[in-house]
Amino acid sequence: MKYSFKNDYSELCHPELLDALQKASNEQNAGYGLDKHSDAAKNLIKEKLECDQCDIHFVTGGTQANASVISHILRPYEAVLSCSTGHINVHETGAIEATGHKVYTLPGIDGKLTVAEIEAALKYHQDEHMVKIGMVYISQSTEIGTVYNKAELKALYDFCKENHLYLYIDGARLSSGLAASDVDFNQLKDLCDVMYIGGTKIGMLSGEAIVFFNDQLKSYFRYHIKNKGAMLAKGYVVGIQFEAAFKDDLYFKMGRHENELAGFLSNELKELGIPLLSESPTNQIFPIFSKEQVKKLQELYAFEIWEPMEDKIAIRFVTSWATTKEVCIELIEDIKALIQ
Amino acid sequence: MKYSFKNDYSELCHPELLDALQKASNEQNAGYGLDKHSDAAKNLIKEKLECDQCDIHFVTGGTQANASVISHILRPYEAVLSCSTGHINVHETGAIEATGHKVYTLPGIDGKLTVAEIEAALKYHQDEHMVKIGMVYISQSTEIGTVYNKAELKALYDFCKENHLYLYIDGARLSSGLAASDVDFNQLKDLCDVMYIGGTKIGMLSGEAIVFFNDQLKSYFRYHIKNKGAMLAKGYVVGIQFEAAFKDDLYFKMGRHENELAGFLSNELKELGIPLLSESPTNQIFPIFSKEQVKKLQELYAFEIWEPMEDKIAIRFVTSWATTKEVCIELIEDIKALIQ
Amino acid sequence: MKYSFKNDYSELCHPELLDALQKASNEQNAGYGLDKHSDAAKNLIKEKLECDQCDIHFVTGGTQANASVISHILRPYEAVLSCSTGHINVHETGAIEATGHKVYTLPGIDGKLTVAEIEAALKYHQDEHMVKIGMVYISQSTEIGTVYNKAELKALYDFCKENHLYLYIDGARLSSGLAASDVDFNQLKDLCDVMYIGGTKIGMLSGEAIVFFNDQLKSYFRYHIKNKGAMLAKGYVVGIQFEAAFKDDLYFKMGRHENELAGFLSNELKELGIPLLSESPTNQIFPIFSKEQVKKLQELYAFEIWEPMEDKIAIRFVTSWATTKEVCIELIEDIKALIQ
Amino acid sequence: MKYSFKNDYSELCHPELLDALQKASNEQNAGYGLDKHSDAAKNLIKEKLECDQCDIHFVTGGTQANASVISHILRPYEAVLSCSTGHINVHETGAIEATGHKVYTLPGIDGKLTVAEIEAALKYHQDEHMVKIGMVYISQSTEIGTVYNKAELKALYDFCKENHLYLYIDGARLSSGLAASDVDFNQLKDLCDVMYIGGTKIGMLSGEAIVFFNDQLKSYFRYHIKNKGAMLAKGYVVGIQFEAAFKDDLYFKMGRHENELAGFLSNELKELGIPLLSESPTNQIFPIFSKEQVKKLQELYAFEIWEPMEDKIAIRFVTSWATTKEVCIELIEDIKALIQ
Repeated sequence: MKYSFKNDYSELCHPELLDALQKASNEQNAGYGLDKHSDAAKNLIKEKLECDQCDIHFVTGGTQANASVISHILRPYEAVLSCSTGHINVHETGAIEATGHKVYTLPGIDGKLTVAEIEAALKYHQDEHMVKIGMVYISQSTEIGTVYNKAELKALYDFCKENHLYLYIDGARLSSGLAASDVDFNQLKDLCDVMYIGGTKIGMLSGEAIVFFNDQLKSYFRYHIKNKGAMLAKGYVVGIQFEAAFKDDLYFKMGRHENELAGFLSNELKELGIPLLSESPTNQIFPIFSKEQVKKLQELYAFEIWEPMEDKIAIRFVTSWATTKEVCIELIEDIKALIQ
Repeated sequence: MKYSFKNDYSELCHPELLDALQKASNEQNAGYGLDKHSDAAKNLIKEKLECDQCDIHFVTGGTQANASVISHILRPYEAVLSCSTGHINVHETGAIEATGHKVYTLPGIDGKLTVAEIEAALKYHQDEHMVKIGMVYISQSTEIGTVYNKAELKALYDFCKENHLYLYIDGARLSSGLAASDVDFNQLKDLCDVMYIGGTKIGMLSGEAIVFFNDQLKSYFRYHIKNKGAMLAKGYVVGIQFEAAFKDDLYFKMGRHENELAGFLSNELKELGIPLLSESPTNQIFPIFSKEQVKKLQELYAFEIWEPMEDKIAIRFVTSWATTKEVCIELIEDIKALIQ
Repeated sequence: MKYSFKNDYSELCHPELLDALQKASNEQNAGYGLDKHSDAAKNLIKEKLECDQCDIHFVTGGTQANASVISHILRPYEAVLSCSTGHINVHETGAIEATGHKVYTLPGIDGKLTVAEIEAALKYHQDEHMVKIGMVYISQSTEIGTVYNKAELKALYDFCKENHLYLYIDGARLSSGLAASDVDFNQLKDLCDVMYIGGTKIGMLSGEAIVFFNDQLKSYFRYHIKNKGAMLAKGYVVGIQFEAAFKDDLYFKMGRHENELAGFLSNELKELGIPLLSESPTNQIFPIFSKEQVKKLQELYAFEIWEPMEDKIAIRFVTSWATTKEVCIELIEDIKALIQ
Repeated sequence: MKYSFKNDYSELCHPELLDALQKASNEQNAGYGLDKHSDAAKNLIKEKLECDQCDIHFVTGGTQANASVISHILRPYEAVLSCSTGHINVHETGAIEATGHKVYTLPGIDGKLTVAEIEAALKYHQDEHMVKIGMVYISQSTEIGTVYNKAELKALYDFCKENHLYLYIDGARLSSGLAASDVDFNQLKDLCDVMYIGGTKIGMLSGEAIVFFNDQLKSYFRYHIKNKGAMLAKGYVVGIQFEAAFKDDLYFKMGRHENELAGFLSNELKELGIPLLSESPTNQIFPIFSKEQVKKLQELYAFEIWEPMEDKIAIRFVTSWATTKEVCIELIEDIKALIQ
């Protein structure tokens, strides 16, 4: 097999992060995220967010982050509202429900929730015989590679604030999502109550940074992540990586790199007349091939089968921080050979 | 501050493990623990356990491992029995109860459960108005540094089997625990139903290996760890470390090293007439100093305050894979100066 | 207000049940459902089911029954499949999710699940990144008054058995549901794994009888209902009522009575040219009136607003064991006056 | 068997309550506790509490009340503190833990918690590695028949308020508890944040009235009881009974009656030289007999075996609203014959 476009977590981590870990290998550091590297990382993130007052916590994985944040925010009878394609609804094996909460889903448009739908859902939930909608979950980028633009995010958050809903952004692929939208990192503080900055899918060994902007949600979250098994004894392992990724622009560079290569693939495919399932500006693209073409392509490359369609198949190519232009060019050449 | 004896997770990881990570940094690996390194690590562990049929799963932390295993085994109305000093009872912020289960505690002797106590507890729980005791949780070494010897473990497990209880060993410090007991690693398969081999506290960045010996408990555990937020996208990060630690004797060497230095400290302290709170053969020791001595010692070293006693204080020194003989000698010298 | 057609639980209980309670008022009875009346009631139900081997448990309410049964059957990572209109999905304020389980929904047809949909759902759920579908929940009659016929139930249950899914029937309105279908009470043992026989909505003060047919699900259910707060100290209060309702045909008579009156209303409305939202053969019917007509009708009768439609409104009339022919005739007369 | 002293829920309900139900049997009432009887009952209770501002909710059973209240008050990482003999710790089959919360226990004195113990427990719980103590659970009367006097309750509640703990009183046997203490019903509003007034063990078919005094705890509790399966469709069944029990002094009369008969038994037993396990002023008493005597007594009466002691056995006699002086005299005569 030449290369895997299966996902953006096939490679260990960016060399600069591994170097940073290497450099710290003779240190002793305090446990549970109370170390100097975690502090430094938090300060760097706060600087780039232009937000002194937020609270930041490092955990290991996205499902952990989602389950911890959502169960921290909601009361037992409250539900989280998600697009039906949302990661918490489809791909977390009931992790949110395991904390006691319904994931209430809406169809969305292009993988994104709209204010109109949420408004209708709130009207439908009027009394104690139905769950109370307590918060809204979205992701940037979404599960199908699309992004919310600034106006959309602002409209969502304004509506949430008016209606006593908390807005939470799952940023598993935040770097790629931001690079493809008109939303700047330092604007996020005004566009949601809480988010997480994904590391696992953006060049780290593992690690996500949960950021609380809303003061009302901050209290006792350290108790909560311990209660959910998400507190790391060696919190500094994640802290060191975030410190290195945010010291200069590395975190954002990786997202831009991913999008550029995915954009290159996307354009080349279109020129070759290969249809795409959706118009994704981020690091996931969904070309549609015949079954036979897919079979042949599988001999050379790894990728996800996304959606079987009558006699065709939509597949998914994901680019990562480690994907090179060369391998992308080679892929296109191989596809050219395939379709002739 | 000269050195921290506060815990065994102050240092990043053993250099051989970091090397192994470095070597894999240009690879692409499959996600979710389905990669070649995880496979190799599992095979190495199975070899050393002399047990082909066990199932092994890697997760990031001890609380995660405990909550995942316990909630996998128990039915909703069942409780886990633990020594009152047990980690799941005292230091996991209700993580087990968060999965819906009572931690039923017994006082134990020297941090260890006895068959007699468990038998009495079972007699006390006779009908549906009380929880059903479904399993027994112990750790090797225990929270206070003691170890179960082989006869004790065998008696416990025999009793558990006769009484339809599952026995689970928390091996957060298994390497140190085994090095101090007459139990061999390859005997564990006959002494419990499930255990975890701790990595975070034994020289790894993070990572624990859950091992199911009992066939009845194996099914669908991958679903369960995903449901509990404990499945790592980059499972190979843990796999690579376990592969390196079990390729030769490294995992066991680290435990022996810890115990040797703790034993050295223990002996020296006794010779100096410093009383110890308990007779611990593992890497945690609990000397008793006057309040004033503790205060002066805190200027030079970091350590846990374990138990305030009238006019004295029991403190805890923990040695790690990275602790050197030199720093231990220096500590003893400083204590000598202190008590003169 | 002349009369409430709002639901079938507006009246205390059938006089024969109140008499039975009165007769037992000087007795002493054992607690927790271990009394002679509960035993007698269970035997009567078993006789009518022609099923000696089933296990029967009395609880107070439908949500309790559903939450207890579903959380008893499922493992933590498993979901229950329901029609999107299902009571557990819409009207239980997240009670199933509160026990840790996802309610996975399918649109259904006429409020009923089809084998084809379930088959597709199973195909979609193939690995540990998604919940495992563990059981199927249906109700007889459904939330919108329709019923499964015998062939439909058999097809569902056959499919479930082939695919290792448990089938559970919510019988909140079982008496009315059976009276409107070709399914006999004694055939239910071969058409599902577990069900509950509703009392609260069929003439009792409160009380539901959970019936386990499948041996694999029977163990320790008494522990489970206690764990879910559903075990009654005075279990005999429910036992006495079920004894009286099943001594002769009373339970089934009440359902037939309800359906007859609802059928009368349905026919009369059709003759008056009033459209009905659905073709319901049971005790719930859904006529569609203009907004103005609804407003006027509300001055005379109580009923639920079911579904606002452009310029019309679908409302719900429910008949109960206590509804009389006279009041139904009067309602029709009032509607006649209204629409002229 | 002559009579059962096994518990105070062996008899259906007080005749006045059954009469009240009978009288309402031709009415139609609104569902879910939103009916005129529930309103009237709440008003009567508020009058007797001299507290207009409290919120009252009716549920069916004690475990339900406890689980609903406790999980409503606590955040996920918080624990409820209870005496180790507390009902929620021993006799609810893990129902509190099933809602995700640890029951943290203290030994207490005579079944009652002391301020000193709670203070020590708070000191012990200082950081996020241990549960946060969020509330204190006590019962009046306690599991072993003792009562808190007013000074004790005040001291507890003062301490709780100073330390941001909520105080909850389980009043399963409140009528008997108050009758034996110097605490008046109308003083309870100043002695706790929330309590429940027990009906099942005090002459009702079933039913408990949860009373929230503290404004901070009131919001959305109707959602919460629905979420926990504790909302009754026919809420008026409980409302009617509480209305009848509180219209005049019936509820309090029943408790006094129980205590008088238990006191009579207690005194007579002492005169006969039969030792009592504890000094209980309420409706539960714990005489100690030889094994042989117990065996003979079991031929005539039903009662609980409370605590096996070397060669003797402590048993429990409970008097109820329905117990007569005659049967108590007969019991004493039979015991006289037994011990001669």
